[in-house]
Amino acid sequence: MLFRQLFDKESSTYTYLIADLQTHEAAIVDPVVENVDRDLKLIHELGLSLLFCLETHIHADHITGTGEIRNRTGCKGLVPENAHTNCASGFVKHGQMLKVGSVTIEAIETHGHTDSHMAYLVKGGSTDHCVLTGDALLIRGCGRTDFQGGSAETLYDHVTQRLFTLPDSTLVYPAHDYRGQTVSTIGEEKRWNPRFVETDAATPSQIRDSGSHRLRQRADFVQIMNNLNLPDPKKIMEAVPANEHCGKKSAA
Amino acid sequence: MLFRQLFDKESSTYTYLIADLQTHEAAIVDPVVENVDRDLKLIHELGLSLLFCLETHIHADHITGTGEIRNRTGCKGLVPENAHTNCASGFVKHGQMLKVGSVTIEAIETHGHTDSHMAYLVKGGSTDHCVLTGDALLIRGCGRTDFQGGSAETLYDHVTQRLFTLPDSTLVYPAHDYRGQTVSTIGEEKRWNPRFVETDAATPSQIRDSGSHRLRQRADFVQIMNNLNLPDPKKIMEAVPANEHCGKKSAA
Repeated sequence: MLFRQLFDKESSTYTYLIADLQTHEAAIVDPVVENVDRDLKLIHELGLSLLFCLETHIHADHITGTGEIRNRTGCKGLVPENAHTNCASGFVKHGQMLKVGSVTIEAIETHGHTDSHMAYLVKGGSTDHCVLTGDALLIRGCGRTDFQGGSAETLYDHVTQRLFTLPDSTLVYPAHDYRGQTVSTIGEEKRWNPRFVETDAATPSQIRDSGSHRLRQRADFVQIMNNLNLPDPKKIMEAVPANEHCGKKSAA
Repeated sequence: MLFRQLFDKESSTYTYLIADLQTHEAAIVDPVVENVDRDLKLIHELGLSLLFCLETHIHADHITGTGEIRNRTGCKGLVPENAHTNCASGFVKHGQMLKVGSVTIEAIETHGHTDSHMAYLVKGGSTDHCVLTGDALLIRGCGRTDFQGGSAETLYDHVTQRLFTLPDSTLVYPAHDYRGQTVSTIGEEKRWNPRFVETDAATPSQIRDSGSHRLRQRADFVQIMNNLNLPDPKKIMEAVPANEHCGKKSAA
């Protein structure tokens, strides 16, 4: 399996390229329109054939590259079931297994940041599995829940019941990071994510000896989320309508 | 082995954390002073014990975090042999093997960006080896050669003779990237790095079938490097003197 993390500096968005190096089939997750040339050049240089673009959700902070990539490659553009768009090539259901050669991408419904959101569990070869967590679970954080049908209650339930139940060694690759972190693990987030768990100080040996974590109560999480008082993303008025039309700036 | 790539958005610098998860020993490569809190927090959360900070070279575009980390942890600060500093805990020689538990870090002298520069080949477990290439080899590029005793001739010789001779599957982790790329491979750079090779267009199947690459002549490379006409790094007047004093802004 080939697995590449790509970064958009302006919006701090991560895009992921996944491929089977035997069949040369590939998928790209959460591409950003400004980086389409970069991403297609890489796909060309690696000799890959792109099967589909996959969205974790309808983004509010950048315009998706899916429409442009679909136009230029003929690949499919897939979005989570119930996403607010009518131009996708297809919708992905909870539990659905997408295939990229021998690599499997399993969709895990993880609503709450928006009312339609999937994480994608990537299984390829003998290495640890990777989960692309979109904006549901970030490194030591999580996506906001105050627009696009977000719900703190749902986010808590889906993250704790569907992501924190994955093996601790599962690598966590989020859709964004604003502090220069690139990857984490489920075990780390269960122990150190301050939105979901109590993270009081501990010595290194206590940390190593402790497999346990103290999950916050659902009501505590909801209170944290309801008191973030964040400004709207700079591009929300432009990005959401564009992304509902697969990245086109005005409706087709 | 634990391997973490960390990013400094302002200077587009990558810092690397390497650890043996059995012994909990760790090393950090090319830390940035503004991120020391972030990096030490991560080391604490992972339950690691930091043995040393390692520099690929004396940087001109950011101030190293090594002095600050050494002060706060008591670890060693190691720099390449002949680096222009007299405050390092030790100097690393070409071919030297550093140990972080069962992980081996082999120093590879790769001068030319500056007159003292090491790449570090990281070997841990059964996964592909990683080479931290500093500013010698960047993804589809290389470091400039017009200050700090740089030499395009030397850079060409060391990259082509000491990095391009590593196995094609070796993962390339540079000290910087300005286009959101996080990792490459030696095979990819031998085929697609426009500074070192001719990269004419090819079809995907030609790319896959072609194991060969057309290395530029040394004189062509030197001509490219001598005609870049880059402005000085914004922080060079502050960063180089500070880094010659292990990150202190004025000489101790």
